[in-house]
Amino acid sequence: MTRRVMGSGRLEAFSDGVFAIAITLLVLDLVVPSRQEAAEQGLAHALGQEWPAYFAYLVSFLIIGIIWVNHHTVFDKVRLVDRPVLFANLALLLVVSLIPFPTRLLAEYLTAGSDSHVAAAVYSATMLAMGLAYATLWLVLTRDAKLLHEDVDPRASRLALRRFGVGNVFYLATIGLSFVNATATLAVHAALAIYYCFDQLPLVTLARKAPTE
Amino acid sequence: MTRRVMGSGRLEAFSDGVFAIAITLLVLDLVVPSRQEAAEQGLAHALGQEWPAYFAYLVSFLIIGIIWVNHHTVFDKVRLVDRPVLFANLALLLVVSLIPFPTRLLAEYLTAGSDSHVAAAVYSATMLAMGLAYATLWLVLTRDAKLLHEDVDPRASRLALRRFGVGNVFYLATIGLSFVNATATLAVHAALAIYYCFDQLPLVTLARKAPTE
Amino acid sequence: MTRRVMGSGRLEAFSDGVFAIAITLLVLDLVVPSRQEAAEQGLAHALGQEWPAYFAYLVSFLIIGIIWVNHHTVFDKVRLVDRPVLFANLALLLVVSLIPFPTRLLAEYLTAGSDSHVAAAVYSATMLAMGLAYATLWLVLTRDAKLLHEDVDPRASRLALRRFGVGNVFYLATIGLSFVNATATLAVHAALAIYYCFDQLPLVTLARKAPTE
Amino acid sequence: MTRRVMGSGRLEAFSDGVFAIAITLLVLDLVVPSRQEAAEQGLAHALGQEWPAYFAYLVSFLIIGIIWVNHHTVFDKVRLVDRPVLFANLALLLVVSLIPFPTRLLAEYLTAGSDSHVAAAVYSATMLAMGLAYATLWLVLTRDAKLLHEDVDPRASRLALRRFGVGNVFYLATIGLSFVNATATLAVHAALAIYYCFDQLPLVTLARKAPTE
Repeated sequence: MTRRVMGSGRLEAFSDGVFAIAITLLVLDLVVPSRQEAAEQGLAHALGQEWPAYFAYLVSFLIIGIIWVNHHTVFDKVRLVDRPVLFANLALLLVVSLIPFPTRLLAEYLTAGSDSHVAAAVYSATMLAMGLAYATLWLVLTRDAKLLHEDVDPRASRLALRRFGVGNVFYLATIGLSFVNATATLAVHAALAIYYCFDQLPLVTLARKAPTE
Repeated sequence: MTRRVMGSGRLEAFSDGVFAIAITLLVLDLVVPSRQEAAEQGLAHALGQEWPAYFAYLVSFLIIGIIWVNHHTVFDKVRLVDRPVLFANLALLLVVSLIPFPTRLLAEYLTAGSDSHVAAAVYSATMLAMGLAYATLWLVLTRDAKLLHEDVDPRASRLALRRFGVGNVFYLATIGLSFVNATATLAVHAALAIYYCFDQLPLVTLARKAPTE
Repeated sequence: MTRRVMGSGRLEAFSDGVFAIAITLLVLDLVVPSRQEAAEQGLAHALGQEWPAYFAYLVSFLIIGIIWVNHHTVFDKVRLVDRPVLFANLALLLVVSLIPFPTRLLAEYLTAGSDSHVAAAVYSATMLAMGLAYATLWLVLTRDAKLLHEDVDPRASRLALRRFGVGNVFYLATIGLSFVNATATLAVHAALAIYYCFDQLPLVTLARKAPTE
Repeated sequence: MTRRVMGSGRLEAFSDGVFAIAITLLVLDLVVPSRQEAAEQGLAHALGQEWPAYFAYLVSFLIIGIIWVNHHTVFDKVRLVDRPVLFANLALLLVVSLIPFPTRLLAEYLTAGSDSHVAAAVYSATMLAMGLAYATLWLVLTRDAKLLHEDVDPRASRLALRRFGVGNVFYLATIGLSFVNATATLAVHAALAIYYCFDQLPLVTLARKAPTE
């Protein structure tokens, strides 16, 4: 029986496209205040009142950006992809391309009393879905050593998976936090994203000699 | 006389762009409930009422994703492209980039009585057009063995075309089903898409030794 | 003095991105009829009344698609690019990315009496700008033989420029036609696009042995 | 300890995507006049009244285009990227993808009395943020010679940084000018962009023998 495997070039190109579009579409939700709002309270004040939209924009941009950086880091270790990898990647892209929707929702309802809890919970659930999709992609990629480059260390790979699990527990906790305080929930998502930025051993990175050293 | 043939790199890059944008634009049709709707019935309930939009989003995402996976699989077999291939591919991209429109239409009218039939028929007709464009692209690609890699088996290629035909008969049937029940029609499109995901011998794939075996 | 020249890879990637987005954004102008319109006249009839939007969509899709095919054909002959090429290409992309605006305008005003003439003239002027940008790009590319592949024939290159000139005279004529009949103008743009599809010696293609012969 | 470095291919592909989308999304803010406006004053006149939108569109297109050209020029000198480069690049992309928002804001308020000053200041502040992000990216790239190609001259690199500084002083000055005259501010941004087009020794370009000479 034959098996179909392919280089990862087009998967990366398609994924880069979806990441780039999702991250850039976020700007469509920054709304220019109407002439009437500006006439009543001045444009500067009307813009200032939209801070939930800017905050949600910033956090979602950061999150998509970091997913991209880590996607990049993961596929730097990958030599070949097969159909299960294509579909696991598609599931991740589904969540990524969805992110502008909960972002818009949270921007609109961040200061809206009890509805803010619902909006924050939808946002947090999206992030949990993203974390689960990421862990699944990693599982599918590491199920077959032939898909990875030779210098990938299987032990580090198992360790990375455990750290994914920890991340998902945090995302699950933010769903609970949503029902306490929506703004705090968004701040925690920002903190989680920044934590992933500065992480010295990123979840998805295996021990590996750099080409220049 | 000279003939113009080119590598398939830019065709793939351009197609990946159109696929990625079409699949990501779908999110623009997930509408945040208005403050008034949320005030009347609560945000959670207002969001729940939008299930046709989520359902249509999910099915269309799956369909575009699978067209992309199969486009990827097809062009993995292609060595060179000429002008007829560029235009056959453009016809496929026309249908793909159109998909957000019938998706929006069906999301709006899925539960709207007799208008739901019209919306579902437009959606199904778009999928039929996609199937026909795909079969045409395959015909144009396989009309000249020089365009394909050497290891492509012409017999498997003819077989694949026959299976395209079967797929298009199914799409034609969904137009009929649209006038019976719109929601069932969308569910059948989901099932067809999932069938193509798990198909062990995808329509467009020829018998071929994998590079790693 | 040093001169900066670069490979054409990223110019092509960036251009493919702009082409792909402009061609896909066109779908945002296909408007789903409101519930009220559908209630008054039935969804099928309400959709039918939007034929100017479908017609404008189709013609603009075809035009952007063909510009892309020809852009592809041109850069297949190019070995290196310098800053003037980057900016001449940017001017072409400016017009391409603008096309969704006159398309939307013409879709809205195609049947609107005397305003239809204004809308058609804006559409035609955009196509003239596109033709002029294309000719300029070709001039900038062919001003220095070192930028092109060695097998490019300078005589065919001059001939191609003359044919660009003819194309632009046609586009100029459509501006005049706009003030007679807007629908006929759009039909002529469709015909011009189809003419460029089937042209056996495309304007921008030089005599050249194909790699496979 | 191992260090992670990667080729710059995917960073460029992702950045090209964001640039291409941000530059093409600008067209969504060119609004087709309503039927009522056209009926009252004629379509041609209604279109003419939208000149602030066309002006802002043109300047922002030019600015994003030139950032892209210079981004291209910078990464033509880069051999490898590491995580700090990925994040410095992400900060630049954040500003680039934001540009459609201040463009829309300025298009709406360019002729709106005292609110025009606020809109112009937001626009100018965005350009300052872009200039600072660019300088930061350059600093992060040049902090480690191993990331750059061997023929890059460190002295020219320091000189380039000084010229970045000058550019940012100009952007800072446009924030002040915003409170004098919004239209003049936009004109100065156009002039700055054109200056960067024609600059014979672009800020970011190092002395280097061209491959063809």
